[in-house]
Amino acid sequence: MDQQQCRRLDAADPLAGCRAAFELPPGVIYLDGNSLGPLSKGARRRLDLALGQEWAQCLILGWTESGWLDAPQRVGDRIGSLIGAAPGQVVVSDNTTVNLYKLASAALTLRPERRTVLIQDDDFPSDRFVAAGLAARSGGRVQVRHFRPDEMAGSLDAGAALVILSQVDYRTGRLHDMRGLTRTIHEAGALVLWDLSHSAGAVPVALDSSDVDLAAGCTYKFLNGGPGSPAYCYVAGRLQSQVRSPIWSWLGHAEPFAFGPSYEPGPGPKSFITGTPGILGLAALEGALEAWRGVDLALLRQKSLDLAETFIVLVEARCAGAGLELLTPREPELRGSQVSWRHPRAQQIIAELIRRGVMGDFRPPDICRFGLTPLYLGFEDVWDAVDQLRSALQGLAAGEPTTAVVPATP
Amino acid sequence: MDQQQCRRLDAADPLAGCRAAFELPPGVIYLDGNSLGPLSKGARRRLDLALGQEWAQCLILGWTESGWLDAPQRVGDRIGSLIGAAPGQVVVSDNTTVNLYKLASAALTLRPERRTVLIQDDDFPSDRFVAAGLAARSGGRVQVRHFRPDEMAGSLDAGAALVILSQVDYRTGRLHDMRGLTRTIHEAGALVLWDLSHSAGAVPVALDSSDVDLAAGCTYKFLNGGPGSPAYCYVAGRLQSQVRSPIWSWLGHAEPFAFGPSYEPGPGPKSFITGTPGILGLAALEGALEAWRGVDLALLRQKSLDLAETFIVLVEARCAGAGLELLTPREPELRGSQVSWRHPRAQQIIAELIRRGVMGDFRPPDICRFGLTPLYLGFEDVWDAVDQLRSALQGLAAGEPTTAVVPATP
Repeated sequence: MDQQQCRRLDAADPLAGCRAAFELPPGVIYLDGNSLGPLSKGARRRLDLALGQEWAQCLILGWTESGWLDAPQRVGDRIGSLIGAAPGQVVVSDNTTVNLYKLASAALTLRPERRTVLIQDDDFPSDRFVAAGLAARSGGRVQVRHFRPDEMAGSLDAGAALVILSQVDYRTGRLHDMRGLTRTIHEAGALVLWDLSHSAGAVPVALDSSDVDLAAGCTYKFLNGGPGSPAYCYVAGRLQSQVRSPIWSWLGHAEPFAFGPSYEPGPGPKSFITGTPGILGLAALEGALEAWRGVDLALLRQKSLDLAETFIVLVEARCAGAGLELLTPREPELRGSQVSWRHPRAQQIIAELIRRGVMGDFRPPDICRFGLTPLYLGFEDVWDAVDQLRSALQGLAAGEPTTAVVPATP
Repeated sequence: MDQQQCRRLDAADPLAGCRAAFELPPGVIYLDGNSLGPLSKGARRRLDLALGQEWAQCLILGWTESGWLDAPQRVGDRIGSLIGAAPGQVVVSDNTTVNLYKLASAALTLRPERRTVLIQDDDFPSDRFVAAGLAARSGGRVQVRHFRPDEMAGSLDAGAALVILSQVDYRTGRLHDMRGLTRTIHEAGALVLWDLSHSAGAVPVALDSSDVDLAAGCTYKFLNGGPGSPAYCYVAGRLQSQVRSPIWSWLGHAEPFAFGPSYEPGPGPKSFITGTPGILGLAALEGALEAWRGVDLALLRQKSLDLAETFIVLVEARCAGAGLELLTPREPELRGSQVSWRHPRAQQIIAELIRRGVMGDFRPPDICRFGLTPLYLGFEDVWDAVDQLRSALQGLAAGEPTTAVVPATP
């Protein structure tokens, strides 16, 4: 693999044209789209419309005339098309944490005779903390049990009410078998809540055909919705008559404008819309999703794997002996859309790369993470990134002063 | 009172210059700022910066370089300055419903031996539904008791844990006595959670000096943050070591970037920040708050009362006999910053007014609501609005066809 070969791959790339949809700063190779996706022209256009036309001109009438009231469902269905969910099962609302809370709390009411929430012991903090918080406030009714990666099945017993799982591990980039794990969990009589934050827009997600019960995820990573853009909830159609959000809200009501005395939850996942939706965030997200229009998700997956394979092969060849240890599975079918390496000086490596215009991120204590995002990255970008990595490692080895401590980022 | 007099009042108005901060469409008199405030130049400028500079150029580094991580506290303190809260007690996060849920749930843990949540029987649906939802999921531990306006004290007994109150009634515009009611509630050993959605930015709010425990509110009405802009929580300093959000989140952690095994709530109201903050919504809100810079809140209150008085006097004089019944208290000290009238054909009146460029709103079954917002309304606007109201009522009385059904709006 050399630079010429990378250029040939770019020339033959059927997704190469997607990059034009994004506003990337010149001179930057952005390998952190697994943490915050970049601004797209669609997001800017839609937000300009929401601001200058809808809010400024329609004022209060924007709620109906500009389709604001329906936005949580409309944008939810659009996301649904990227995660294998038929319409009517996904709503955009709140952030990932609040959605995990609502869904986990709702799931527990479906298994009143069971009391255990299972979660992987090194899953993303939000997921673990939400489970711990629910247990702490349950008056002893709910307990959390942690399991080690790949040891879930052994932890499932007759007390298991709910398993919370991330489809892609945020540190290692490991992809879990959604269909197989969901089947195992169902066989034990428990429900499953998948966190798609690191997988939606990055790998194939097939919620409906995997028989998933509940899912949530953020939209600011591979879906490029913007910093802290609103998150979403998925409630499988077969559960919709039973599952209700614990946070009863006026907009989640069957008839929000009746302003009546008692609460009557809306149909489907509507009860999970907690309150007046944040339209500016929803508008940017809706515009960002335009970048996915016409994108073949199978081609996307293939390019993601090819980019990662190129990255791994080049690092192994050109940075050999520099002390980088691959943390991401070597088998393509076990990978999400990021590649992580361990190195004792990981933080300095990332700081030095950022100074050179190659943006990855650092996860304590020793992980360098790099997102490989097919919509706006090419193979020569990967070549250039590895070139800078090689040079940065050589500089560190030679004792060159490092420039900065890399800032902590979500 | 005539049009000339209104013009003289405008000419002498020390707040007249504030209107220049807003982008109001020509030909519209906007009397619905109590539902959705208009776009301001500050909001547009700040959002443009967040989009084009911070997100587009800084990408992931925006979290530290652009101050995104601190935004919930920074903007919270700015709101605090408008509601009588010293710094360190207000954070911006989520929507009003989620904040009411978190605060009410947290309050109940402070009064474990008491089980009743009290709420006015016709308070805004969000507030009532949140309380009902908490009770429904409490396994019988929590119950809700409704009281009729002005009959709160009689409902307070030794079982009362928490009272939820709106400072200004969303339908009548009635202003409640925050200090006096808080004292009565404390004397009964209960806590109080004030909903400031219809009062912040509209009337004087003195949380600290009224000894309030907890408060929440939206920012898209009188604070002009934009459709569905993020809400805020207030936790009194003296309670901060005891009150914890039930939704445990990574960003509410004392050290969010430690990514450690267990949850350790952050200091003060930080634990009420539920997850990654929505930066675009926060940016628009932060920019919108620029319109308040240098505004004397006592002058604002006086102008609000003068606008409302002018409106009431003109309607009573010029629309006499048309069947409008004043729902808002006649005493200025009991009024918020809106005036509501009852009329059997309220919906048609509002529809006809909107067609004529005067935007108020309709609340079932028979209420016309008009927001009197001192930052961008003048006395001649009120004159013109009443002129259109008078003409609309005459048309309705003469059997002229009405134009449209007014859309339901939040």
